Amino acid sequence: MPSVSVSSISGFKEFLPEEQIVLERMKDIIRKHYTLFGFAPIEVAAVEREQVLLSKGGENTKQIYGIHLLDRADQEHGESADKRLALHFDLTVPLARYVAQNYGKLDFPFRRYQIQKVWRGERAQEGRFREFYQCDIDVIGDGELGLLHDAEMPAVIHGIFSELQVGKFVIRLNNRKVLNGLLEHFRIPLQFTVPIESEGTGEPIGGNTFNTLGLIDKMEKDGIEETRRRFRDHVHVSDEQVSTLLAVLTFKDTTAATLKWLQEQQCGELFCQGVSELAEVVGSMRALGVPSESFTIDLGITRGLDYYTGTVYETTLVNHESIGSVCSGGRFDDLASTFIDRKLPGVGISIGLTRLFASLQKHGVIQVGPKCPSKAIIFQMSPQLREDYFAQAMALRQAGIPTEVYLEDRKFDRQTKYAVKKRIPLGIFLDAARKEKGVCTVRDFRNGDEQSVPLKDLAEYLHRK
Amino acid sequence: MPSVSVSSISGFKEFLPEEQIVLERMKDIIRKHYTLFGFAPIEVAAVEREQVLLSKGGENTKQIYGIHLLDRADQEHGESADKRLALHFDLTVPLARYVAQNYGKLDFPFRRYQIQKVWRGERAQEGRFREFYQCDIDVIGDGELGLLHDAEMPAVIHGIFSELQVGKFVIRLNNRKVLNGLLEHFRIPLQFTVPIESEGTGEPIGGNTFNTLGLIDKMEKDGIEETRRRFRDHVHVSDEQVSTLLAVLTFKDTTAATLKWLQEQQCGELFCQGVSELAEVVGSMRALGVPSESFTIDLGITRGLDYYTGTVYETTLVNHESIGSVCSGGRFDDLASTFIDRKLPGVGISIGLTRLFASLQKHGVIQVGPKCPSKAIIFQMSPQLREDYFAQAMALRQAGIPTEVYLEDRKFDRQTKYAVKKRIPLGIFLDAARKEKGVCTVRDFRNGDEQSVPLKDLAEYLHRK
Repeated sequence: MPSVSVSSISGFKEFLPEEQIVLERMKDIIRKHYTLFGFAPIEVAAVEREQVLLSKGGENTKQIYGIHLLDRADQEHGESADKRLALHFDLTVPLARYVAQNYGKLDFPFRRYQIQKVWRGERAQEGRFREFYQCDIDVIGDGELGLLHDAEMPAVIHGIFSELQVGKFVIRLNNRKVLNGLLEHFRIPLQFTVPIESEGTGEPIGGNTFNTLGLIDKMEKDGIEETRRRFRDHVHVSDEQVSTLLAVLTFKDTTAATLKWLQEQQCGELFCQGVSELAEVVGSMRALGVPSESFTIDLGITRGLDYYTGTVYETTLVNHESIGSVCSGGRFDDLASTFIDRKLPGVGISIGLTRLFASLQKHGVIQVGPKCPSKAIIFQMSPQLREDYFAQAMALRQAGIPTEVYLEDRKFDRQTKYAVKKRIPLGIFLDAARKEKGVCTVRDFRNGDEQSVPLKDLAEYLHRK
Repeated sequence: MPSVSVSSISGFKEFLPEEQIVLERMKDIIRKHYTLFGFAPIEVAAVEREQVLLSKGGENTKQIYGIHLLDRADQEHGESADKRLALHFDLTVPLARYVAQNYGKLDFPFRRYQIQKVWRGERAQEGRFREFYQCDIDVIGDGELGLLHDAEMPAVIHGIFSELQVGKFVIRLNNRKVLNGLLEHFRIPLQFTVPIESEGTGEPIGGNTFNTLGLIDKMEKDGIEETRRRFRDHVHVSDEQVSTLLAVLTFKDTTAATLKWLQEQQCGELFCQGVSELAEVVGSMRALGVPSESFTIDLGITRGLDYYTGTVYETTLVNHESIGSVCSGGRFDDLASTFIDRKLPGVGISIGLTRLFASLQKHGVIQVGPKCPSKAIIFQMSPQLREDYFAQAMALRQAGIPTEVYLEDRKFDRQTKYAVKKRIPLGIFLDAARKEKGVCTVRDFRNGDEQSVPLKDLAEYLHRK
């Protein structure tokens, strides 16, 4: 009798073969496009030293899983902090460490892709995973990195999401300099403090500090009027300035109109630099074949508040906005100064594949199909012909056609039932009479069609099917 | 200044891009052949419940890494054993749990491949990794599983190692029933005890129990005479029986001769069953196109002492025997009885990819090449032609040719130097004069050849290159 019960572990999603096949296909498409743009693969260890992961700070560091040997847990935990290991929670911190560590052996601009699992001790809830795939590309410059790289990212995104066949999508572009320039121009502080008042006397006894960009990030959720009130009451910005700020941030129109309107605003040097960067990126994107209907400028995006410094990307599915961004990224000035005494600016994007797949499946955007990769199955009609079945199967495999031979000693209807259940499209019937004529019968299980096919033409016939 | 120093973590091997490219190519070849035989992909979580991993027992359980949240380590460690999680140390235990958990949703025989990392807290030493890839296939039957599946495994191995181009290799076959039958026939116990004597009086004060198969396993290392002595002194087997036993175990000849000789021995029912299974597997392997020079029967293989019950495989590289087995596996009677009340026999193989790659590289069997996947790079000869460069690059990518545009604003020799360092084979030169004629110049960096190529034929020309 079984002695250990088995059940799912919350947040660690696993898939059935028919789902995994679709997931692998998506992964292959992503990898293909990353490769077509010349990004080289790297893969980092699942673990880093604790201090490396903690060096970045931020929310995610609260979700880090450390590892310890079961056999001597106490000893490992007693080890000094610089020895302790933990699972990475993203691919950016390991990339920074990898580039710093291998700096002398890499060629810059360093273009790499990375498709790996990451782990986060998230609170379990729908759509939140504790283990998931990230598919990242980044270009890292040594000292400096030209703006043209920022234009390539949307071209990669466009190629991937077009081939994934997930319906219409929009790549949303912003540039942090536009927003920062605006705040600078209006002398709006990046942080503000809301006083905490004594419950008894109402006198201020302290204060909570907030990020100004956080107000903008929450604008869509909390509404424009509430955002306006907060800017006025907490950040002490004049009504007129708030109006301009919100007008810019909520300006959503065609790219050309947005750019023209922005270029007419006189909001200081940083703002203008951001606008001109946006204009250059948009121009090069067009040359790279990204069609107008697939992207827009959206100045409300404040992704990566602390991290990104220039161009910022998000990608949303037009008919499934609720999924949120399916591919995000941006430009950063400083990848790895915690680890190396070099300025390493970069730009990159990331696709959260596990979440994307699960969301698309939930929303009915993708359906699962066959339970195995076999395109054909050869049935065992006669044990005497076994060697023929094997030889035919090997010939089909050599022609690149995934093929099974039904190997169990079972009645005929059990054999076809197996093929139908696994949704193998084509069944091959070969008995002594057919063999004598040099033919076999191919049944297409998708529509029931049967066709007699010369054995010598079998691979070619199946390829056409 | 950098505040965190970076260095390798012992046992967690990482590769440079030029190495990773070769590793990915090997992974692709393995995956291709698994797919051609109709194996479906699955992927399990990196973690299992502790009790699932510990249920199998054995050496590896001493090497398990548990995980804990850094932020509340105490709380997690206080959790009951059935909640605690740990990283899997192989793919077999998770497969057993997965099949038990999804039993009703899978179709049997269940054919799956799995290419994932596993983690073992090994003592660090050369060629031993704490994190490494395993590439497994298994066929799992529900209640029973025909012997023909055992013949397919060597066909898969043959396909993979032929395409990997690692020189001559030999698939070594054994059947545990041959060995077990022999022991049974001679009434040799599977375990024996060596008494421990008091240092003072020389009287027995206890005993150490050993596995008889262990003696055979160590035969190659310790020599035949020492093995004979141990059998005589510790297992109390007559000289004559030991002679027959060792004659069988050391019989290495062509497969046909071995089989004929074995079939002539009269060593009981189990022995004969093992020999006839070996004969059937070998016969089907030939039909599946595995050539005679690529396999042999080797009765000295005792791999998976406790686990395998029938056919056993090892694969060695003829010119690099010291690497040891590069692909091993076998037949087992009972995958998952700890987890489910069903008999689930199976047969499978496993390739330890990380170790294989590292060994092949060390032995000079594989060399690394380019540092990126780009087949072509378009140089920026004139900023005015940027849109042309982008358009040409996109056309090449759409034709399936990984292509980079040099995007930095650098002098010309810096651009070509970058291409040469990254070993991008083909460089594309396009300036105003060439554009006017509708041509570009393609330089083959491998031999310095230059050719003027019409822009409209560029993709086709590069494909031919």
